Amino acid sequence: MEFTVNQIAGLLGGKVQGDGNEKINMLAKIQDAKKGQIAFLSNPKYEQFIYTTNATAVIVKNDFVPKKDLACALILVQDPYSSFTALLEEYHKLISFQKTGVEQPSFIGEKSTTGAGIYRGAFSYIGNNVAIGVNVKIYPNVFIGDDCVIGDHTVIHAGVKIYAGTKIGNHCLIHAGTVIGSDGFGFAPQADGTYKTIPQLGNVIVEDHVAIGANTVIDCATMMGDATIIRQGVKLDNLIQIAHNVEIGKNTVIAAQAGVAGSTKVGESSIIGGQVGIGGHLVLANNLSVGAQSGIGKTNTQPGEKLMGSPAIGLTEYYRAYAVFKNLPDIAHRLKELERKMAELVRKEPIQS
Amino acid sequence: MEFTVNQIAGLLGGKVQGDGNEKINMLAKIQDAKKGQIAFLSNPKYEQFIYTTNATAVIVKNDFVPKKDLACALILVQDPYSSFTALLEEYHKLISFQKTGVEQPSFIGEKSTTGAGIYRGAFSYIGNNVAIGVNVKIYPNVFIGDDCVIGDHTVIHAGVKIYAGTKIGNHCLIHAGTVIGSDGFGFAPQADGTYKTIPQLGNVIVEDHVAIGANTVIDCATMMGDATIIRQGVKLDNLIQIAHNVEIGKNTVIAAQAGVAGSTKVGESSIIGGQVGIGGHLVLANNLSVGAQSGIGKTNTQPGEKLMGSPAIGLTEYYRAYAVFKNLPDIAHRLKELERKMAELVRKEPIQS
Amino acid sequence: MEFTVNQIAGLLGGKVQGDGNEKINMLAKIQDAKKGQIAFLSNPKYEQFIYTTNATAVIVKNDFVPKKDLACALILVQDPYSSFTALLEEYHKLISFQKTGVEQPSFIGEKSTTGAGIYRGAFSYIGNNVAIGVNVKIYPNVFIGDDCVIGDHTVIHAGVKIYAGTKIGNHCLIHAGTVIGSDGFGFAPQADGTYKTIPQLGNVIVEDHVAIGANTVIDCATMMGDATIIRQGVKLDNLIQIAHNVEIGKNTVIAAQAGVAGSTKVGESSIIGGQVGIGGHLVLANNLSVGAQSGIGKTNTQPGEKLMGSPAIGLTEYYRAYAVFKNLPDIAHRLKELERKMAELVRKEPIQS
Repeated sequence: MEFTVNQIAGLLGGKVQGDGNEKINMLAKIQDAKKGQIAFLSNPKYEQFIYTTNATAVIVKNDFVPKKDLACALILVQDPYSSFTALLEEYHKLISFQKTGVEQPSFIGEKSTTGAGIYRGAFSYIGNNVAIGVNVKIYPNVFIGDDCVIGDHTVIHAGVKIYAGTKIGNHCLIHAGTVIGSDGFGFAPQADGTYKTIPQLGNVIVEDHVAIGANTVIDCATMMGDATIIRQGVKLDNLIQIAHNVEIGKNTVIAAQAGVAGSTKVGESSIIGGQVGIGGHLVLANNLSVGAQSGIGKTNTQPGEKLMGSPAIGLTEYYRAYAVFKNLPDIAHRLKELERKMAELVRKEPIQS
Repeated sequence: MEFTVNQIAGLLGGKVQGDGNEKINMLAKIQDAKKGQIAFLSNPKYEQFIYTTNATAVIVKNDFVPKKDLACALILVQDPYSSFTALLEEYHKLISFQKTGVEQPSFIGEKSTTGAGIYRGAFSYIGNNVAIGVNVKIYPNVFIGDDCVIGDHTVIHAGVKIYAGTKIGNHCLIHAGTVIGSDGFGFAPQADGTYKTIPQLGNVIVEDHVAIGANTVIDCATMMGDATIIRQGVKLDNLIQIAHNVEIGKNTVIAAQAGVAGSTKVGESSIIGGQVGIGGHLVLANNLSVGAQSGIGKTNTQPGEKLMGSPAIGLTEYYRAYAVFKNLPDIAHRLKELERKMAELVRKEPIQS
Repeated sequence: MEFTVNQIAGLLGGKVQGDGNEKINMLAKIQDAKKGQIAFLSNPKYEQFIYTTNATAVIVKNDFVPKKDLACALILVQDPYSSFTALLEEYHKLISFQKTGVEQPSFIGEKSTTGAGIYRGAFSYIGNNVAIGVNVKIYPNVFIGDDCVIGDHTVIHAGVKIYAGTKIGNHCLIHAGTVIGSDGFGFAPQADGTYKTIPQLGNVIVEDHVAIGANTVIDCATMMGDATIIRQGVKLDNLIQIAHNVEIGKNTVIAAQAGVAGSTKVGESSIIGGQVGIGGHLVLANNLSVGAQSGIGKTNTQPGEKLMGSPAIGLTEYYRAYAVFKNLPDIAHRLKELERKMAELVRKEPIQS
């Protein structure tokens, strides 16, 4: 776990300025880095730190020209942030959880299979007819119902509950306490004021490369044959609600505590802020950007739109209106004053005519 | 699992038009249905599909008169949606989870009893002095503390945590990861700025026919003898917060991520939208309808009122005010213009007098 | 568990008026109390109940002078509410959970240690190199990852999941289903529209005397060496989101379903309402008070400020503006009317000049 600056530059396809033979054993932030560590500089507002950092090397952009002398070596690359992330990943692989095997006691039902490299933690439960791919990590206290499919290289953290019939893709990451496949919230009102539970017979499909945070909930679809679908590359944060029959489009990112009501289709490559609420039965455009705490109640969104407010309107429009909202008492006062003056003028007018 | 159209009509008390001898083996939506399947038509905007559907039979309202020729048989009933739901339920019973018995390892304390038809999943934990009714299903990794009572036919999904002393009624359905009976959030401020934890000694009572979604939390009451109460027929969605000493009235429905603060009494037969916040120490009227993301901070609600906004006002009132809110920059501009003109007029006036 | 009024007064350092020899066996609210029970009177609006209560004794403030005859004894103290809370605590200790020992099956990894008075419930999982203090209670189905430290007298309720490397202090209370140490939500956008997961290598530090509600989530910090920090005396309610690298200042209280985005520093001794959203990369002042459902998006808060709205402004400012907001349709109408009159006046003006 020790590399030279030259070796790291080779890995990143970058050029070295300064002493390429220095040794690196750790990554750090530029303002905190110590000798033997490597940092990066991407945001210009951190440039000041490069002149005082104790880092042995700093990854910078190709065109970076220092304004003062530097004590550190530089590695020049096209995108310092991505390069640093790539290093982080390599480091993470080195130190990360590599457990394999089956801890006891754990439970696996009939006709269920697991691939090579499996880790099944103690007190994890796998039902019948479950097909689990290679290099899957199932932490302790996980529940996987009957007839589920779990793809290769997927990691399921402690206490996740996956209902029967759920399909999860490859390279997915599901954090602790999350529930996938619970019943959609469907109740038919009866004449006597009670509600009858509508059986929820569909399932959930989570495609490849999806990350799901902790204590999030994804309900199953109502009808058999239907699915709630989380498309490839979607990233869901913690404590999110995804209702029955929802579809979240490819590469969309949703921040914590947001909720999507039943049967809504969220577009691709969108960014949904924290605590946003999206109503039911909507079809949203792609590339939306929705500000935190906004509420989307209608469907005629445009691709690339930035939305804010509840109900949401254009982001700029919202902030402009809100700026006036703060001054409403002043506006009310000025309006009253104008009315008074107007009444006075109108009282005089008849005399003049 | 195959019935004739006539048999199904008999079950629903409906009349057949078309071939009553055709075979049905599955339910489906009218726009997706294939041969051998039965669908329903309730909402007129789906009527178009009945002329093209491949369904073998469609359940329609008594007074339905087709505008074109139909390839499918009809079953005429009073309420097609309810009839279809009834069929779904029958189907659900046929295919649903019928496990009974006790998987090992599982834990049950002293003096605890379970009724006939019990399922206790592996890694489920039942404390001491717990009384569990007949046909109860306790999924894996469930925790039930000491002195709890669980009624007949209740289903408790994987990883539910029920604190000591909780009472749950008959025919309840509790989804995965939900917590019932955790401490109310009560802390007494001390002179030095710290808080002292107020012991929470009450419990939670969940009456019959209550459904609770996944990862929801219901806190216990503060004082011994007091209870947080979820009344008969209430339906709670996922990720809901019910604080200490709250009472949710009969047949009220609460959507996902809503929260009710301590000691508040929510009325009967109300519909509370997603992400709604209801303040503490309120007594709300019955039959309220509260729009998503609203905040209820005061108590003088009227039965049947529709509320919206934070703090919530009348729904219509809110939307009317919000329509003007969007135009506030224009209003501010027009007001300024008027002030300018007024100043000009007033400047002229003295000359005229 | 039976004491005389005199004994209780002695415990509280209070003076008795009335019969000090009466027996007390239970605590209750003044409006519900029965013979043999003790209640308290703190809020003057409950004074009416003291004249009709069946309580055997009531704890009142030193300077309380009854306006009518009383059937109950009085214990006069400086702070009746605190005294009652102290009694509640004593009672709670008497009746509360005193389990010790290790239930089977449970799991503990290599080089992990537990102190005297430990309770480890069935199906609880403790990884490798975990150091657990004295009198710690670990309920069933808890997961504690490798290299964690858990302080003395800490209680961890059923189904809590604590990721590897987390440090938890003394006298902490963590309710069921909560997740501590899950990955921060960090993804680097790639040129092809996908996101690369940024490895999350930091941890979470929870200091002493922290209480955390049920189904809350606290993410770990991004960089190794960094921590998400919950300072001493903080009280977090249920279903709260604390993102990566957040710090919550000493003695701050956060109500249910609130969320704090990444890298934000919430000040000390603040009170954050339910469903509040706090944006990322902010440094908030101490002693803030933030109204329920508010959204904090900027950083220039003042110590002691009361905030409300989304984005939040001053509490009074918000309510004043909202009062006008409700009347916006009227304001729009009056503005239009003024414009009409003004147009008329301006039309006349040229004639006069």
